[in-house]
Amino acid sequence: MNSNAGGDLRAFFEPGSVAVIGSLREGGGLGYTVVKNMRQFNFTGRIYPINPSVNETFGLKVYPDVGAVQDQIDLAIVITPRQTVPGIIDQCAQKGIKAAIVVSDGFAETGESGARLQRELVETSHRTGLRIVGPNTVGILNTDNGLVTNPYFISYDKILKGNVAYCSQSGIVGAQGQPLKDQAYPISKMCDLGNKCDVNEVDLLNYLSQDPQTRVIAMHIEDVKDGHKFINTVRRVVAHKPVLILKPGRTERGAKASASHTGSLAGSDRIYDAALRQAGAIRLNTWREFWEIPRVFVNQPLPKGNRIAIITITGGVGVASVDTAEECGLAVADFSPVTVNRLSRLSPQLASNPVDVGPIIPTLDNPWPVLEETIAAVLDDPNVDCVTATLYISSGEEIPVYMDIFDRVMKKVTKPMSIWIYGTELAAMEELLRKLQERGLPAYLDIELAIKSLATAAHYSRVKCGLNHGDLGISKFRVS
Amino acid sequence: MNSNAGGDLRAFFEPGSVAVIGSLREGGGLGYTVVKNMRQFNFTGRIYPINPSVNETFGLKVYPDVGAVQDQIDLAIVITPRQTVPGIIDQCAQKGIKAAIVVSDGFAETGESGARLQRELVETSHRTGLRIVGPNTVGILNTDNGLVTNPYFISYDKILKGNVAYCSQSGIVGAQGQPLKDQAYPISKMCDLGNKCDVNEVDLLNYLSQDPQTRVIAMHIEDVKDGHKFINTVRRVVAHKPVLILKPGRTERGAKASASHTGSLAGSDRIYDAALRQAGAIRLNTWREFWEIPRVFVNQPLPKGNRIAIITITGGVGVASVDTAEECGLAVADFSPVTVNRLSRLSPQLASNPVDVGPIIPTLDNPWPVLEETIAAVLDDPNVDCVTATLYISSGEEIPVYMDIFDRVMKKVTKPMSIWIYGTELAAMEELLRKLQERGLPAYLDIELAIKSLATAAHYSRVKCGLNHGDLGISKFRVS
Repeated sequence: MNSNAGGDLRAFFEPGSVAVIGSLREGGGLGYTVVKNMRQFNFTGRIYPINPSVNETFGLKVYPDVGAVQDQIDLAIVITPRQTVPGIIDQCAQKGIKAAIVVSDGFAETGESGARLQRELVETSHRTGLRIVGPNTVGILNTDNGLVTNPYFISYDKILKGNVAYCSQSGIVGAQGQPLKDQAYPISKMCDLGNKCDVNEVDLLNYLSQDPQTRVIAMHIEDVKDGHKFINTVRRVVAHKPVLILKPGRTERGAKASASHTGSLAGSDRIYDAALRQAGAIRLNTWREFWEIPRVFVNQPLPKGNRIAIITITGGVGVASVDTAEECGLAVADFSPVTVNRLSRLSPQLASNPVDVGPIIPTLDNPWPVLEETIAAVLDDPNVDCVTATLYISSGEEIPVYMDIFDRVMKKVTKPMSIWIYGTELAAMEELLRKLQERGLPAYLDIELAIKSLATAAHYSRVKCGLNHGDLGISKFRVS
Repeated sequence: MNSNAGGDLRAFFEPGSVAVIGSLREGGGLGYTVVKNMRQFNFTGRIYPINPSVNETFGLKVYPDVGAVQDQIDLAIVITPRQTVPGIIDQCAQKGIKAAIVVSDGFAETGESGARLQRELVETSHRTGLRIVGPNTVGILNTDNGLVTNPYFISYDKILKGNVAYCSQSGIVGAQGQPLKDQAYPISKMCDLGNKCDVNEVDLLNYLSQDPQTRVIAMHIEDVKDGHKFINTVRRVVAHKPVLILKPGRTERGAKASASHTGSLAGSDRIYDAALRQAGAIRLNTWREFWEIPRVFVNQPLPKGNRIAIITITGGVGVASVDTAEECGLAVADFSPVTVNRLSRLSPQLASNPVDVGPIIPTLDNPWPVLEETIAAVLDDPNVDCVTATLYISSGEEIPVYMDIFDRVMKKVTKPMSIWIYGTELAAMEELLRKLQERGLPAYLDIELAIKSLATAAHYSRVKCGLNHGDLGISKFRVS
């Protein structure tokens, strides 16, 4: 185990050794799939498969139970039929294991008999100090060490290592539920808390706030165990890392659905909403926002204010961008005289914000230097705090050119940028998005997201600076 | 020209012969590209390339001017330097051409000298009866006859023929600006009105309302020439076809940006907003909604009410779906006793809405019949007006299975459905989306869009039935 990291949950995310307890049936066994996934992502620790009726899997010795393993086990991953779980958790505690992820379902979410089994887990946890994530979870993923506890087959073999922690109370935030490779989300950790019989959102926030690989936390929550403690923890974390929250149950019927999904009652949404905003958390409204907006925080400085420059290739989208910017609390920057001059030298048509390079491009044999100089000019403007630039792509052959431009531009960038990509070939657009993300540039296929992401960064920047929450930039902010 | 269609704009959309007037320089000439695009999309009419310094292009005889063509020309496509355009338009009128698309830019959108040229075009139009679309436009596309007037290279060779007309005041709504093939938007017509020196949004609505290929109209507008007339026209069209409107300029700064983009002043947004809603138009807020929501109207009946059934594979998304549904005016249906029984026979866990098949699937060797029966059961329920179903896809090998299921389900469907697709491979998800769309099923990669599209259909259904606009379903409706 990495000994220089802090927090109670280290064993869950940074185990030196794991036991995988479940069916090792080749092909479809859930334990088999966990081992397979971990090997696919090159887990750096030792793996001890546990099963009484198998001798070997993936060339690894299989043990009949955790007690039969001589070495220390940092983390147990339990994926067995629910009625067997309490006994296995008890064995884990006896073996001295400090952390267990109960992937199995059929507990409090299904009714009284499941709830009774779940209470047994909690009792063992309280009695022995063994911490439990779950049950009813796909568990944890860590791009730093290749840990993945997901019992479902993952069709891809690479996840971009980055600095966003995605947390949830649903398996949808899991490697089996998202095209993580194709979307190039820059991930540090993922954690599905499941039924939260023990480890909850507060523990997780405390751990992630200390995690050096995590710079931004995106959290999907349906219910909160201790609202007061949660809000206080959020406030503490927000002081140094942004916390973005997707919390369904906004409507009465949604809250009711949430209760039946996780087996616990959600509080009044209006109260949470006010408390979360007061604590400096940022509330998201859609799953797309949940996945996409955190990108903006990963590799860039925070904007020093809310003034945006918009570089577009299409006037129509330029106008729509202004609406979006203003509606989520950004101000369309008025360029300084120096910038106006600099842009006018390229073309008099370029000297106002949004800068529409669309009409200029077809008139030039080589439009790239104009695009590059336009980006550089607005980034240099002291009246500009952040920039959204547009890239058009057709066949994909433009990609190396764009990479060259941004390799140069990025060296001089001290302000956050986002990129909106549009074009005629979806695969080329997605490829460009990935290439930009690999360089740390947040890119989007929706102009509204490209702008909202910067609005979110500007909002967080103000919160962090402790500015008056009642002022215009904050009160007008909303991401929807 | 198709003689059985009505409306003033037939020559623009259904010409038997076109003249393409512009540079025929191989590779990059704008006229050359128009001809190339038209041949790529198998335009069914005759093409007369016009250029004084070329004899032949693409095996077609080139004429020095339109006067040199003996045959009738239904439509002229003009893509020459702006100062030459008034003279060419005059020649077109003398030749007896009734319709011209002026693709060239540099007119009212650039200042006074351009505005003067534009006025010359208007004068010729008034004097001779020649109708003009543009200037400053990518013009028109018609999937029924392969007409495309776009002067930019289009990298793909196929557009799904369908029943959505996409209209705009921006080149972004053009074949060179969107991955039309990859997204499988079911398109009837596209039209960029550009500067609207003559043909405007009212003319276009009147034409599209008569167009048998168009069942739904999505319209991006920045300014309106005659607000009163426009609203009255919208009201008339809405009585038989839905009109979805994306109108930027919602903020003061956005309205200002709009003015400088199109050279005309937008009216107060609040007034338009109220008038549009009163007329039964549906206001959209994002470009993604503009492209995606119309799908829902193409091949399906309208919902008879606002009660939705949600079939999910992930409880977390199920809860979020309920919020989205309620927030845009849908009601989560309470299943009839018959449906509850039918679903309970599959599993007691399935008997409530949202129906979460997630926990059941891993317990079954063959989960498909359960999914199919679940969909069939909720579609049969008299308490259900529309359905959103979830499909999960990994490698893509599930596609034929899903197609089989929906081929059977679709035969019995008398209610609108939308599909939310999620999974681990973006390309497979997009392929499944296309395959479903080709069968007329609207599919989405965002659960919120899958639900909002049905909310939009339910809203329009009420508008069309002339129900009281003040009732709950309407007043709560919003798409954002």
